Amino acid sequence: MYPLLLENTSGKNFEMIAARQHIETVRRRAKVDAILFWGLENIRYLCGFTGSDGALIITAQGWTFMSDSRYKEQVAGEVQGAAFKEYKQKVEGVARFLLALRVKRLGFESAALYYESYQKLKEKLPRVSFRPLAEEIRGMRARKNAEELEKIRRAIQIASQSFKDTLSRIRPGVREKAVAEFFEWRMKRRGGEKLSFDTIVASGPRAALPHGRATDKRMQKGETVVVDFGVRFQGYHSDETKTLILGKPDAEQRRIYDTVRRAQEKALKAIRPGVNVRRVDAAAREVIGKAGYGKFFGHGTGHGVGLAVHEEPSISPRGRGMLEEGMIFTIEPGIYIPGWGGVRLEDMVLVTQKGCEVLTMLPKDLQENIYA
Amino acid sequence: MYPLLLENTSGKNFEMIAARQHIETVRRRAKVDAILFWGLENIRYLCGFTGSDGALIITAQGWTFMSDSRYKEQVAGEVQGAAFKEYKQKVEGVARFLLALRVKRLGFESAALYYESYQKLKEKLPRVSFRPLAEEIRGMRARKNAEELEKIRRAIQIASQSFKDTLSRIRPGVREKAVAEFFEWRMKRRGGEKLSFDTIVASGPRAALPHGRATDKRMQKGETVVVDFGVRFQGYHSDETKTLILGKPDAEQRRIYDTVRRAQEKALKAIRPGVNVRRVDAAAREVIGKAGYGKFFGHGTGHGVGLAVHEEPSISPRGRGMLEEGMIFTIEPGIYIPGWGGVRLEDMVLVTQKGCEVLTMLPKDLQENIYA
Repeated sequence: MYPLLLENTSGKNFEMIAARQHIETVRRRAKVDAILFWGLENIRYLCGFTGSDGALIITAQGWTFMSDSRYKEQVAGEVQGAAFKEYKQKVEGVARFLLALRVKRLGFESAALYYESYQKLKEKLPRVSFRPLAEEIRGMRARKNAEELEKIRRAIQIASQSFKDTLSRIRPGVREKAVAEFFEWRMKRRGGEKLSFDTIVASGPRAALPHGRATDKRMQKGETVVVDFGVRFQGYHSDETKTLILGKPDAEQRRIYDTVRRAQEKALKAIRPGVNVRRVDAAAREVIGKAGYGKFFGHGTGHGVGLAVHEEPSISPRGRGMLEEGMIFTIEPGIYIPGWGGVRLEDMVLVTQKGCEVLTMLPKDLQENIYA
Repeated sequence: MYPLLLENTSGKNFEMIAARQHIETVRRRAKVDAILFWGLENIRYLCGFTGSDGALIITAQGWTFMSDSRYKEQVAGEVQGAAFKEYKQKVEGVARFLLALRVKRLGFESAALYYESYQKLKEKLPRVSFRPLAEEIRGMRARKNAEELEKIRRAIQIASQSFKDTLSRIRPGVREKAVAEFFEWRMKRRGGEKLSFDTIVASGPRAALPHGRATDKRMQKGETVVVDFGVRFQGYHSDETKTLILGKPDAEQRRIYDTVRRAQEKALKAIRPGVNVRRVDAAAREVIGKAGYGKFFGHGTGHGVGLAVHEEPSISPRGRGMLEEGMIFTIEPGIYIPGWGGVRLEDMVLVTQKGCEVLTMLPKDLQENIYA
């Protein structure tokens, strides 16, 4: 369906070694004998497994990936740098293996383990001391390597081309759902593995719902239409939002659109390595606040995108940490006015040595989003 | 896109009252002042909220649903039987509310709360004693009411019609992915909200992978093709598997298909209220074992389907509990032989007063699945 562009994986070993060294440092600092990964994204990141169930156990002696018999063949083809061990039942199998390893202190991925599974593991390992690891590993996937960047670029390309395929259907009289369905079919047809999320097509007053799913509502002349979409390619996601105006924009539409666009540009300009994530959020928020729409921008300015649609860093008033070269995230300010509608503009960016590169390709300027 | 068949909700109040009484009993038995629900399926089940973030707090005094400002409008239209309280940040907002309620003993949904969130809640509520609730609430959604059944029937209908739309494309020379894409597009087009999971189309030796995603492989004459699919309608899922043979079946294909079909029929016959779930699993397993394929049937015989694609009851050697009237689950034995291929037949059934009703509609007999 799609050309395999990613044959050249020469950088891979180096990057894998870097990730391994990082985890080993985490393990030693946390003073644990083993780290138990339970979340599929981190497992995929660390050993390559793309299936839907498994656990990764890391000790100073070696890495072991565990899963059930369904995945035996798949593991042989995918998993790198870890031995495979099969279990019949996950919690029981993992506990037995940890016992055999004589693990005394166990670090675990607390953001990915439900309390119930933790409790069951603990019952089976009464002498093991458990240490939750959250902040220590949270930002692990934030910086992307060349191979990850390439996959994200492909996802963006598929989504952009599919948007163009769909464009002629975004016109008065057409139902929001008809647009979403066709768009989603194109993204799959063009080689996307999966949608990043259900495509949002929210027109007129519905555009005031930041998470407005496509409905049977017909779009009408003069309305703004928020279209938020993304697709996955080889595990990596895209995420982008356009706002279209179906007619000549009136003064308020123009004012609000311009405000969001200026907020987005201000945030983009604030991006470079070493800058606190909150400063980027504040840059966008200030523009919207000064224009008098502060209370209509109720979400963060952006979020990391990679193996998960939402990951680190968080570009928000509560975000923490500094930007680093190689991070990829969204910049997506918006203004949502109940009863009136809304505008959101979302691009994905890569932090470069001196600033950022906008990865998404569809135009966000007002004049290119008027469909009169 | 689809006709709203579900106007008549006369049974709803009664069913809601029953669920409420059940929860109140759980709360009293667990001797807690409040129960905190964190998982979206149970939240939707108990108060109707269909969004993607929130918490439900149940006390003897009343029910409160909490979420952030994005969902304010949606909550007003959807949530029944619970007051709404907005938070800015989930853990902080929920903790503050529980403090204000003077909760001393808190039951929580431990199968839906990550350890990290539990830990943060606990830090903010140092004087509250936490009691994990898992088994006490696990089977809560297993019996379906009339409205739920109707939604599941609609999901099955959409999937069945879409399968028929797709049928002419399942032929030698066509890529597995092309079949999956078209099929998925039809399910959306016919009113499905979302796929239950990525459609499986696994042909020839690939049919030996119980979770074989559709690839660029072209189907070939004489191969078996496992197609596993489902779609969501108003929150409720369908899940069904057909195995087709692209040509005149040879002796081994015939023997294996017949074995799986007999296993499925044996399991279906074992279903009635009061029967242990393991007996139903054993019924299918025995047929496959006696035919000499025991080690090639590595998964459970079935699982409940509803707001989640996999929920209670679990029809497996490790399952627990008795069947009850109104439960809906799959019966899906399979035989998977590495290198050769596989056969799986999956139907959804409703437990009736004296037996069961097969809800899925596509034929599973061999003669109706030969595409020569």
